Amino acid sequence: MKNWPDLKATLNTVIFGSDTRGGRIFDVLLIACILISVVTVMLDSIAGINAAYGDILLQIEWFFTIVFSIEYGLRLICSRSPVHYARSFFGVIDLLAVLPTYLSLVLPGSQFFIVIRVLRVLRIFRVLKLVQYTREASILMTALRSSSRKIMVFLMDVLILVILLGSLMYMIEGEVNGFTSIPRSIYWAIVTMTTVGYGDISPQTPLGQFVAACIMIIGFGILAVPTGIVTVEMSRAASKSRVVCPNCGAGGHDNDALYCRYCGETLQ
Amino acid sequence: MKNWPDLKATLNTVIFGSDTRGGRIFDVLLIACILISVVTVMLDSIAGINAAYGDILLQIEWFFTIVFSIEYGLRLICSRSPVHYARSFFGVIDLLAVLPTYLSLVLPGSQFFIVIRVLRVLRIFRVLKLVQYTREASILMTALRSSSRKIMVFLMDVLILVILLGSLMYMIEGEVNGFTSIPRSIYWAIVTMTTVGYGDISPQTPLGQFVAACIMIIGFGILAVPTGIVTVEMSRAASKSRVVCPNCGAGGHDNDALYCRYCGETLQ
Amino acid sequence: MKNWPDLKATLNTVIFGSDTRGGRIFDVLLIACILISVVTVMLDSIAGINAAYGDILLQIEWFFTIVFSIEYGLRLICSRSPVHYARSFFGVIDLLAVLPTYLSLVLPGSQFFIVIRVLRVLRIFRVLKLVQYTREASILMTALRSSSRKIMVFLMDVLILVILLGSLMYMIEGEVNGFTSIPRSIYWAIVTMTTVGYGDISPQTPLGQFVAACIMIIGFGILAVPTGIVTVEMSRAASKSRVVCPNCGAGGHDNDALYCRYCGETLQ
Amino acid sequence: MKNWPDLKATLNTVIFGSDTRGGRIFDVLLIACILISVVTVMLDSIAGINAAYGDILLQIEWFFTIVFSIEYGLRLICSRSPVHYARSFFGVIDLLAVLPTYLSLVLPGSQFFIVIRVLRVLRIFRVLKLVQYTREASILMTALRSSSRKIMVFLMDVLILVILLGSLMYMIEGEVNGFTSIPRSIYWAIVTMTTVGYGDISPQTPLGQFVAACIMIIGFGILAVPTGIVTVEMSRAASKSRVVCPNCGAGGHDNDALYCRYCGETLQ
Repeated sequence: MKNWPDLKATLNTVIFGSDTRGGRIFDVLLIACILISVVTVMLDSIAGINAAYGDILLQIEWFFTIVFSIEYGLRLICSRSPVHYARSFFGVIDLLAVLPTYLSLVLPGSQFFIVIRVLRVLRIFRVLKLVQYTREASILMTALRSSSRKIMVFLMDVLILVILLGSLMYMIEGEVNGFTSIPRSIYWAIVTMTTVGYGDISPQTPLGQFVAACIMIIGFGILAVPTGIVTVEMSRAASKSRVVCPNCGAGGHDNDALYCRYCGETLQ
Repeated sequence: MKNWPDLKATLNTVIFGSDTRGGRIFDVLLIACILISVVTVMLDSIAGINAAYGDILLQIEWFFTIVFSIEYGLRLICSRSPVHYARSFFGVIDLLAVLPTYLSLVLPGSQFFIVIRVLRVLRIFRVLKLVQYTREASILMTALRSSSRKIMVFLMDVLILVILLGSLMYMIEGEVNGFTSIPRSIYWAIVTMTTVGYGDISPQTPLGQFVAACIMIIGFGILAVPTGIVTVEMSRAASKSRVVCPNCGAGGHDNDALYCRYCGETLQ
Repeated sequence: MKNWPDLKATLNTVIFGSDTRGGRIFDVLLIACILISVVTVMLDSIAGINAAYGDILLQIEWFFTIVFSIEYGLRLICSRSPVHYARSFFGVIDLLAVLPTYLSLVLPGSQFFIVIRVLRVLRIFRVLKLVQYTREASILMTALRSSSRKIMVFLMDVLILVILLGSLMYMIEGEVNGFTSIPRSIYWAIVTMTTVGYGDISPQTPLGQFVAACIMIIGFGILAVPTGIVTVEMSRAASKSRVVCPNCGAGGHDNDALYCRYCGETLQ
Repeated sequence: MKNWPDLKATLNTVIFGSDTRGGRIFDVLLIACILISVVTVMLDSIAGINAAYGDILLQIEWFFTIVFSIEYGLRLICSRSPVHYARSFFGVIDLLAVLPTYLSLVLPGSQFFIVIRVLRVLRIFRVLKLVQYTREASILMTALRSSSRKIMVFLMDVLILVILLGSLMYMIEGEVNGFTSIPRSIYWAIVTMTTVGYGDISPQTPLGQFVAACIMIIGFGILAVPTGIVTVEMSRAASKSRVVCPNCGAGGHDNDALYCRYCGETLQ
């Protein structure tokens, strides 16, 4: 039998790593468990299934809660720095994924119970561990991060536009046509501008329909802006090669660059 | 105590500037006031809240109107050129943001009163002062301005297409299926072409559904055009100041490049 | 008084040209007439307005029909080649814009009458004459024309996908849930894939909603394709400078090109 | 009369090839047959037409089934490698296109019968044979294939987001407002995020409408990502074979360039 530090190191490799065969099997099993437990919660929310199989689903729910609790304990024990893990993004998610079922014992209010149950869906975020390091995801992240400021400016402009247009439609259509308040009219303006268009509220007066048509055509043009932003950033992120200057260490050179743009050193 | 020119200069720095600590605090407070007053107007438009808290909301409305009036007066006094300020975009917005509440005293017609109240939402545009000088916003503006002519040509083509298709659908579907007039059918065509799709009017006859499907697929292709326009302009705006190498003539260098990436020549 | 050839040349300049002062005034007046007559047709289609002002609108309609008929005659007379004009795109449109009103005298069937009246909306296409030569429109046209083959391939793929998915949903949902036939289900699939989403037909069974969700997510990805096509073509059309090689006459060089890519001649 | 190997070679050229006159005629006839048979299936699914012309449509269906069966047999006989053909994509599609009608004899269950009939729509995929080798289609394929991994990462993120937001809305709106279960709420979230917006389920509470508005604005930004991905890949696929100058090292030359645009060096 192995001694404790060796067992801990093996556990660490299996649970946290995904390079060894054991680590990969553990990850796949874990993702399967997460998906099954999420599906269980979903099925339990359907009235017919809850009435017929509610007890079995509750048992499955408890089974996975205990499995994930043990897993959380093992992660804490075999982690090189338990505090660092517990405070990390996935440490918090791991804890939030088991807490609700236990809390439902102490606080048995049915309404509140459902609220807690749903939070466990967050558990699926752990699946991301397998994906987040791929190059594709990192290019997506880089492009979104560098365009986030432009998108923020853009969204704020859209928000102001939507408040103005929503208020205008509240005045034009009024309460009789479903635009019962300014917040509700702003909701309508967002539904229209983003081209979702539920149709739960729709303009009835000719003037309202004219203004709505203008909003749609404006939205047509506006829709192009975030796409343009992300495309340009993505194009830039994709065209930056991973070449690092051997002299000054600057990265992010273009793919066809022959000299470092900061110190003039030959690159290739 | 300070003498008047000094006080005026200090006021000017605090109210118009955002570089000093006082200026930043003033701006943040002002934005908070604007947001609270806008939320007040919105809440007041909800029937239930108006019935219960209408009096308090009216008092808050008057409080902010007086605050903004004093602010407007101070801006006029401490501005280096009061006439220039009063005629500027934000000078007009600042005035329009306080006028409606006073006007509601002289003209107490309830219907008209609501119209005026809503105009104060424009007040939120002052928030833009903090944003409009950021580089991101200026790139967005440049891209939109240089693509505005292309987008105008495009929108006019769409308008003609929508009039033709709307008229066609008016003939096909007729008044019994909700296409009661050509303007209403054009409204439907815009709702469809922009992919909003309320469903308040939808084709019922097989021929009408066939034409509608064609319109949607056309819209599918057309939707790509404004996006393409804005993306190209944005890409150009983002790379505009890229320099040309004095030695080999290669262009397209990044803004912060010091050496040509093709021949290693010093760029700046 | 001028002799006939001179008068004909002057008329030609005024009616067909837009370079002289007279030509510009004529074009603006003509566009105004077209817009007014289109608005007349639109207003006439609204039941209330037709009942109250039907007679006046009919007179306006006849007035513009006669004006446009005289204009068509003058175009035929003063054109350098009347046959060439009559066969050109705008020659046909000009004729179609006056014919319906005359035809309504011979064939007074009310239903058919409305059909004819609407065709006159095509008249607005003449407005395009002012626009079609601008550089913006020509870049748009170039980009759309060079991407038209890619978009055709893409649309055919979408059409096949939509037929398959529509048939699948017809089997899943069946007639009781509004999917009464395969053509209607294909109509639904197009409404969904293009993100229009009227809601006049929507899946009711869990399986149908699952398949619909898959269709939407596929449509999410597919929507990107025409945009990508047009953007790339537009980017290429915009980046081609108008520089022509002084040696071999080849055009379409990149904006930063120093040498002709076909004969090596210095460009700038 | 020709001997067998010659006849087989001629048949192969006509049936599989599209270079000879006979091959082109065969392909056009085949596509016409496929389209007619697909339209027959579609018409047959319309209740009124089925009642009136069901017998004729059934006969047309059987006629084309026999034609396609003979064609399948000929393909098997004249193919250079019958096993390779039978296992290829179009071999399987060709077989699936004739099987359902025969199966409907053995298994006459009416419900199941419809299911089988619809599968024949897949027959239209054979039309693709004419298109799939064009350069446009191959650029589209290359771009989609190289962006498929990025789009997968993106779709998985969207799926997680949609599960979380759907569950949140299930809690906020509850069963009384149509959000009867978590799967149904996720369906709603997908309908909203992809901007389809049927309106069969729409938020009724102010909080629900606020969250829905946030989802739409998030969707607004997210919609830009797949477009950006595809555009960048398509731009790369279109410019992939651009050559590098052997003298100055500048890349990005057009495919047909003979001289470097920066230094005038011969490229090919």
